[in-house]
Amino acid sequence: MHTPEELQSYVEQTLTRQKLVREPANLYQPVEYALSTGGKRIRPVLMLMAANLFMEDIKPALLPALGIEIFHNFTLLHDDIMDQADMRRNQPTVHKKWNANTAILSGDAMFIKAYEYMLQYQGGNLRKVLEVFNQTALKVCEGQQYDMNFETMDEVSEADYLKMIGLKTAALIAGSLQIGGLVGGAGKEDAGLLYDFGWNLGVAFQLQDDYLDTFGNPEVFGKNIGGDILADKKTYLLIKALEKGNSEQRLKLGRLVGNRDLDPQVKIRAVKEIFRGIGVGDLTHVKAEQYFEAAMNGLKRINKTEPEKSLLIGLAEQMMRRKK
Amino acid sequence: MHTPEELQSYVEQTLTRQKLVREPANLYQPVEYALSTGGKRIRPVLMLMAANLFMEDIKPALLPALGIEIFHNFTLLHDDIMDQADMRRNQPTVHKKWNANTAILSGDAMFIKAYEYMLQYQGGNLRKVLEVFNQTALKVCEGQQYDMNFETMDEVSEADYLKMIGLKTAALIAGSLQIGGLVGGAGKEDAGLLYDFGWNLGVAFQLQDDYLDTFGNPEVFGKNIGGDILADKKTYLLIKALEKGNSEQRLKLGRLVGNRDLDPQVKIRAVKEIFRGIGVGDLTHVKAEQYFEAAMNGLKRINKTEPEKSLLIGLAEQMMRRKK
Repeated sequence: MHTPEELQSYVEQTLTRQKLVREPANLYQPVEYALSTGGKRIRPVLMLMAANLFMEDIKPALLPALGIEIFHNFTLLHDDIMDQADMRRNQPTVHKKWNANTAILSGDAMFIKAYEYMLQYQGGNLRKVLEVFNQTALKVCEGQQYDMNFETMDEVSEADYLKMIGLKTAALIAGSLQIGGLVGGAGKEDAGLLYDFGWNLGVAFQLQDDYLDTFGNPEVFGKNIGGDILADKKTYLLIKALEKGNSEQRLKLGRLVGNRDLDPQVKIRAVKEIFRGIGVGDLTHVKAEQYFEAAMNGLKRINKTEPEKSLLIGLAEQMMRRKK
Repeated sequence: MHTPEELQSYVEQTLTRQKLVREPANLYQPVEYALSTGGKRIRPVLMLMAANLFMEDIKPALLPALGIEIFHNFTLLHDDIMDQADMRRNQPTVHKKWNANTAILSGDAMFIKAYEYMLQYQGGNLRKVLEVFNQTALKVCEGQQYDMNFETMDEVSEADYLKMIGLKTAALIAGSLQIGGLVGGAGKEDAGLLYDFGWNLGVAFQLQDDYLDTFGNPEVFGKNIGGDILADKKTYLLIKALEKGNSEQRLKLGRLVGNRDLDPQVKIRAVKEIFRGIGVGDLTHVKAEQYFEAAMNGLKRINKTEPEKSLLIGLAEQMMRRKK
């Protein structure tokens, strides 16, 4: 079986071999750019690991795995327009480097390319694979819509938040694993268990991300700490703080959130202090741990031996223990 | 065999039966809105006619036909953001009625729904159908990119223009017909001939549209005459005028095109006068007629009797003779 590192390098090699840019070049250059800025290729790696659990030779899965990575980067490209994000992985975003129209249309082309690569899958259960891919894609859109809706809502419940990150983040991790299973030849039940494993892992991963954005070590986290606080983002931390805080803490938070006139470092420090007082960091950890355990319990039920699943367990643990 | 009118009403009925709006409602309401504003459903009707040429019962083709219509309206939705168009079919466009972010994300969801409906096709050649659909979708994006590129180019050649409208307009008409053929059970050769028929018909149709936008009868054309002139659009008429005009005519045109300070009616009248002097209306008609004849010649080669093809011929003629 292949290690995640091997699989990541296969994904990179497969990507490098593709001739993505053709005429009109200004449609395809942004596609190549968006894919070249790296990232850990977590989704195709998980997909390939799931496939590898059921079949030895992962070659037939490489092009569809690339389809998943292209789809993921398409969603980032369009999200960055909507969120007016200027930077992604320390590089200017496509709509900044080019313009919004280019980002819209190149994103559309990228999405079509994602399907093109999914269609490279030669197995007999292509229809099922595409159905999962399609349903997953729609969930990601729904998640992004909920996320945008939350921006203008006064109150977001914990349940609504967990649903949103489930759709926006976990669905694609879940779908990648299920597709990997299907491509590898897993039965319906195992493929479903892989999906559930991915969903729980994805939610745990996002909760961890929320935690690190506020409480991570800036030297290892690799991006600025407190970005969510400055953007007044309704993260799990803020939602729990507003739920669990006493009236004074909530009043203080109410004055800080939405206030864009404060010195950034002052605002971050003040919000973190309230968060610490309420203990939302621990609450977030506990919740993430619950989802992680649910993921592991689901994985146990998959009809494979423990040693066979060890690489998947290892990667999942690494995703949770990451500091950046 | 079903008439185009019957097929259009089947498409409408099929659309009405779909429950497109679910949660989050503000993601799906724009999708429903964009699909409800009508249009002649030309592409799914052509697809169904091609299918009907090879199979009697068109029911299995209805949901994929809807997929084609949804895809077409998705491209309009995103194009309208890029072109900053405020109105479409006498209704405010999605990005005007809602906002650009909604239009981007609802457009993405719409595109995914288009695939969802294509996947409803139950035939054994699903892979081939999806490949044609996918290649067609990419061509439409390429056409839109060329069209946007033309806006900032000093000179566009006739060949480049014909290539652009081929990709932007004709490819989807061609792809719809080919998919219809494949769904109906046509052989590879006939499916290819349907594609070529659609491509030539689509180019003829767009040339006709260029003509009508400038020389159409405003009472029957249904939209304002001269829109392309006011937008300084590089249509076939303008390209031929700049190619065929004498130096005085080209000089005059050069002063008019790009000039946004002129009274709209004065500008339209002046440009039309030069166009008439050069005879570009006739040149456009001749070119459209050439493509239409090529379409008809291709249709003749399809392995079906003349009476069987008569409905398709009738609709093609109607598309060319339309005044609105």
